[in-house]
Amino acid sequence: MALWTQKPIKGVLLDITGVLYESGNGGGNAINGSISAVLELNKLGIPVRFCTNETQCTRRKLVKKLHELGFSMEESHVFPPIPAMCQILKKRDLRPHTLVSSAAMEDLSEIDCSNPNCVVIGDATTELSYENLNRAFQMLIAMENPILFSLGKGKYYKDAGELCLDVGCYMKALEYACDIQAEVVGKPSSNFFNAALEDMGVEASETVMIGDDIVNDVGGAQACGMRGVLVRTGKFRPQDEQHSQVTPDGIVDNLAQAVKFIIESKN
Amino acid sequence: MALWTQKPIKGVLLDITGVLYESGNGGGNAINGSISAVLELNKLGIPVRFCTNETQCTRRKLVKKLHELGFSMEESHVFPPIPAMCQILKKRDLRPHTLVSSAAMEDLSEIDCSNPNCVVIGDATTELSYENLNRAFQMLIAMENPILFSLGKGKYYKDAGELCLDVGCYMKALEYACDIQAEVVGKPSSNFFNAALEDMGVEASETVMIGDDIVNDVGGAQACGMRGVLVRTGKFRPQDEQHSQVTPDGIVDNLAQAVKFIIESKN
Repeated sequence: MALWTQKPIKGVLLDITGVLYESGNGGGNAINGSISAVLELNKLGIPVRFCTNETQCTRRKLVKKLHELGFSMEESHVFPPIPAMCQILKKRDLRPHTLVSSAAMEDLSEIDCSNPNCVVIGDATTELSYENLNRAFQMLIAMENPILFSLGKGKYYKDAGELCLDVGCYMKALEYACDIQAEVVGKPSSNFFNAALEDMGVEASETVMIGDDIVNDVGGAQACGMRGVLVRTGKFRPQDEQHSQVTPDGIVDNLAQAVKFIIESKN
Repeated sequence: MALWTQKPIKGVLLDITGVLYESGNGGGNAINGSISAVLELNKLGIPVRFCTNETQCTRRKLVKKLHELGFSMEESHVFPPIPAMCQILKKRDLRPHTLVSSAAMEDLSEIDCSNPNCVVIGDATTELSYENLNRAFQMLIAMENPILFSLGKGKYYKDAGELCLDVGCYMKALEYACDIQAEVVGKPSSNFFNAALEDMGVEASETVMIGDDIVNDVGGAQACGMRGVLVRTGKFRPQDEQHSQVTPDGIVDNLAQAVKFIIESKN
């Protein structure tokens, strides 16, 4: 397959949910072959970073859960949106009104949230009630220059076997309500991918991103100059293989198959 | 003013909330001069119909409330979206999953909602919880040809002095989630305006629509060939006077002033 051999693969970015494990009750389950696939990349000496739009818990808890499922990775190799968001807020001197899962608030604890001059929304599930979204709207519409950050722009994710509305839908609702455009922090933002590439010290053209989100993982990586590979796990749906806007560089059954191809390309 | 004299005004369409009365706790309050303004149109023999996207109660209860506030109108002269929606569902043999205020469900009681093959969303406020919206999403994404009806597409409305998210924002969320385009029933749909015009027996070019929603009342009426007048009551905001897409044929302080101009144009 040309994808794997057209240029050496010197770095790999992995989505987490739907690629490493399937979420579900009791923390979910590792996807068959994913634990050893990550170990094999390590053995090959290929740097790996984990790019996730997960905002339903802190990075620390997320890594702890992955360790419990059997994965091994350093916490600093996991890139969720909230630490990136904190950097932006500090740099631009912004104080957010946050609509983020309360379980993830710890990662925002260093941020001044008094007298807000922007709104940050994340994948907050049941906390995205009418009342809470309405409050975020009222804050925005009262601002002279409304600033909305969205931690990702996914349409839906899969949880316990069911597709569920993701933060992107609520971003669209607030964009429409206030006639504004949100700034996306997380995939598919190129700043977000580039931070992980820089951390690996690998060029985009020598990196493959593997994910289950055709638009945000695959399309987002391609827009940054990476190769984008779609897995048939997680929220993958058969119609993704004929997507109107994104054509993956490769489609594989799962992460294990992707890593098998990477190993074969080295020989 | 050219608006009022360029062509005789033989019919008037009125928005309800924000034009006749300001909503609020305890049923709200009639806007100063609006009760007598409607009476004066009746005296002049100018037919009036009431075009509202109100779906938070039944038509019967809405009219009862307006009567209690001091307005006089026939129930059949009030056009809310749900009766129009019922006609469409019956005609196209569709069975909806509804996400509509429970207080308005009585108007849908004649509709078969078993084994749904479409989704109808309305202005359901607190019922627009994450769980309920997610359920509507899951119904849509599982359909081979997802059909979404939205009862209006307003961005926000004013309640008890505060701007609140309207159904259009949730329509946008579901459109994005499922890659579909909703069918709008209610303003600014031309079918909806035309039903009221037909009921009056007046041409669009001889009709003025008066409302507080620059896009859906004013812009919607203009797209149908009517004149569209904006009132500075209800959810009106000063920036509406420099709207990027819609230029009203006239802007008035309130309904009473609009009717004063109509009377003067007759002399």
